[in-house]
Amino acid sequence: MTTTPEQLDAILAEAAAAAPVWASSSRADRAAWLRAAADALDAAADELVPIADRETRLGETRLRGEVGRTTGQLRLFASVVEEGSYLELTVDDADAAATPPRPELRRLLVPVGPVAVFSASNFPFAFSVAGGDTASALASGAPVVVKAHSGHPELSRRTAEIVASALEAAGAPSGSLALVEGREAGNALVQHPVIQAAGFTGSLSGGRALFDLATGRPDPIPFYGELGSVNPVVVTAAAAATRGEELAQGLATSFTMGVGQFCTKPGVVFIPADSGFEASLAALVPATTGGPLLTDRITSAFPDGVAHLVGDPSVEVVASGTAHEGEAAPIVLATDAAAVAARPEVLLEECFGPVTLLVRYASEADLHAALRAVPGSLTATLHSEPGEDVAETLGLLQSRAGRVLFAGWPTGVAVTWSQQHGGPWPATTSLHTSVGATAIRRFLRPVAYQSAPQELLPEALRDEALATLPHRRNGVLVLP
Amino acid sequence: MTTTPEQLDAILAEAAAAAPVWASSSRADRAAWLRAAADALDAAADELVPIADRETRLGETRLRGEVGRTTGQLRLFASVVEEGSYLELTVDDADAAATPPRPELRRLLVPVGPVAVFSASNFPFAFSVAGGDTASALASGAPVVVKAHSGHPELSRRTAEIVASALEAAGAPSGSLALVEGREAGNALVQHPVIQAAGFTGSLSGGRALFDLATGRPDPIPFYGELGSVNPVVVTAAAAATRGEELAQGLATSFTMGVGQFCTKPGVVFIPADSGFEASLAALVPATTGGPLLTDRITSAFPDGVAHLVGDPSVEVVASGTAHEGEAAPIVLATDAAAVAARPEVLLEECFGPVTLLVRYASEADLHAALRAVPGSLTATLHSEPGEDVAETLGLLQSRAGRVLFAGWPTGVAVTWSQQHGGPWPATTSLHTSVGATAIRRFLRPVAYQSAPQELLPEALRDEALATLPHRRNGVLVLP
Repeated sequence: MTTTPEQLDAILAEAAAAAPVWASSSRADRAAWLRAAADALDAAADELVPIADRETRLGETRLRGEVGRTTGQLRLFASVVEEGSYLELTVDDADAAATPPRPELRRLLVPVGPVAVFSASNFPFAFSVAGGDTASALASGAPVVVKAHSGHPELSRRTAEIVASALEAAGAPSGSLALVEGREAGNALVQHPVIQAAGFTGSLSGGRALFDLATGRPDPIPFYGELGSVNPVVVTAAAAATRGEELAQGLATSFTMGVGQFCTKPGVVFIPADSGFEASLAALVPATTGGPLLTDRITSAFPDGVAHLVGDPSVEVVASGTAHEGEAAPIVLATDAAAVAARPEVLLEECFGPVTLLVRYASEADLHAALRAVPGSLTATLHSEPGEDVAETLGLLQSRAGRVLFAGWPTGVAVTWSQQHGGPWPATTSLHTSVGATAIRRFLRPVAYQSAPQELLPEALRDEALATLPHRRNGVLVLP
Repeated sequence: MTTTPEQLDAILAEAAAAAPVWASSSRADRAAWLRAAADALDAAADELVPIADRETRLGETRLRGEVGRTTGQLRLFASVVEEGSYLELTVDDADAAATPPRPELRRLLVPVGPVAVFSASNFPFAFSVAGGDTASALASGAPVVVKAHSGHPELSRRTAEIVASALEAAGAPSGSLALVEGREAGNALVQHPVIQAAGFTGSLSGGRALFDLATGRPDPIPFYGELGSVNPVVVTAAAAATRGEELAQGLATSFTMGVGQFCTKPGVVFIPADSGFEASLAALVPATTGGPLLTDRITSAFPDGVAHLVGDPSVEVVASGTAHEGEAAPIVLATDAAAVAARPEVLLEECFGPVTLLVRYASEADLHAALRAVPGSLTATLHSEPGEDVAETLGLLQSRAGRVLFAGWPTGVAVTWSQQHGGPWPATTSLHTSVGATAIRRFLRPVAYQSAPQELLPEALRDEALATLPHRRNGVLVLP
């Protein structure tokens, strides 16, 4: 089922008509609309989870958890809207004594207009029709048109119906959320004059193609894409010696979680060449079990990706887990730091699925040379011990990542105020996050009002509202 | 004098070496460096202003004022760095009771790395080598490489020498500020792997070409361009009746200021068809005097631009001012709203220089149809009277602009916390400002630290520093 150009135009005409209603909606109304969408999704979980499981093979437990994550996300954004800091309210009073005299200026952020969201295969709820991009765009005050992922079409349609109905029943205009299907419709969507920004989670090649369409428009728009990430992990000699087995256990769990299909999967793990870490991991992996991958395309791409790595003369197979016929079995590979520094384009390409590459380093210099070849990533993890000098290693890791971990593993992304899910290219195309409260900033633009009469100001900038909202006045932050 | 590819590589190697020093510099040091640059520029004004006047013909009074604006800008950013809100410090404490348990996360913004700045012809100080883009990039903690504008090469060189020396004398590393010259060097600069973001002020065609290079890189970078703006003004029937003469006087001053070479020049002014406003303006303009334009290219482009407008069958010449031989004389043109709605690509193209186009409207519907054709602008101005219903007009104006004025004229851009200098395409390529405190956000990216020991956190995120800085903790804003 693909959306025709005529259908696309009709959908975008509705979104365009809804945009001013969303833009002028009160924060209280918008919070209520987001919560109505969350409630409707929670209520529909029994219907949606089986559809999702049939289409993605991710299993009921994981999918029920993901519904909760998705509705929690919508509710977090409702509270972000209510709190009001996201408006960045700023007032500079007039100053007749300044040279030149300064007029009054009041500034806030306003929604950019209709947003396109391209949903992901690997999180059919949390990064899909009603996922983080949609939640943050709606919170900003923008209607959303979602391009369904071909991996879960029926789930996408039902989710869109349920959320659109809930929004309308709560008082939002029609055209608040719509769905389009098919690659051609997606390409047309990101180039459509009505669309003012786009969010994307997916592959490097797909994201790059859409980024090029968005930036190549006669009127370029911001394209917030999350494209690919190898999520480097460094285990220091002291950490390997002190808690090598515990770390090996953590890695075995993390790289096989969701059958290795998390964008934060630890894909490359730097370990001391002469530690027992590798043997510890090798002992654990045979007991791990893989599972079915999300789509037939991903299923056939996984062995190709592994073969591509194993084709490098430096790479050996450390251990494998088990899987049913036609499913993907976990596999651990190993190489050395010199090979990574020499051929990063081969050894550091993201491979979706339950595989991780150990990189043995013989010295700090060896490690740092290889880290310099690591591309931008969503996360970087450093397992070290107190008292070790890790300054240079840490500097290299944080220059390449948006989230730096010092304990635990990168799979698992808390939806909070301080989350950062994004990093240097190719992890993302932007200097923003796609998860957490500040994701809303992607769909807002600043407007300043100069010498405005109170009654012509947006409500949030009037004196009465300022008394109830965090703002900055004459350079000083003021809390309500 | 053009920068060779070898020279460019050497300059960028220095910038790359300076980047980590800037990134890890303390806020106090960075503020001191910015103030040292400001002091050095102020001290060199007597040397620099004559060079600027010879190269740009803008006159000593204006240029001395612009030096003050430029150094004030550097000092504002020093205070922004000291205040610390720009770091967006955010902490979420660990929560073992959450499902799943939540680790501690601490987030701040860090500099993206070396920034390219493309300077403008029309503000040889304030939007040039040491202008707003440079000041905000340095404030963020990034070294800067400036592409000199060919209209003021000697001034660019001396400014770069003075500022680079002042920065180094204050303790900043070498490579903190460098200059490149020539179009080819500029194109290579924005594509160089060391450069992580770019700021630009200039023409639509030049900005678009550089935007395409920046977004077309194998690793695209953000390109913050300010490209072109017609800055619509609406005068309502009541305003024209009540204070038409005063408004005509204001417009005559504003569109001729700086010989019409401000990016915020009111280029298109919607007036009631049957008011006396046009006659009032026509009476004033013959007494206005033009002047020399910035460069030979702009000098020859101005009559072409005027001829392009006058070539439209709807356009008539209302009045002209005077000018010396070879200089540009002010000119006021007029058309009607229907023609603007029908041929916006002709009538609403920015024309750099002392020209403005009156657009007569016969009704609200007439006005609104024409406003819908107005492209994104830096500013929009509404001159109305209390009690008038201007909701729809205002809605159209604010959807097209980054700053909305209700008194005065858009020329004159205060450098403050709440300024917004940027608007929908083609005014700018981004959802940010290039003037005012928040311009710093363009050159920062977020990084979150998960479960980090205090001693491995960036200083600003440690408990001790948090006590002295504005931050958000568990969703709640906290002031020091």
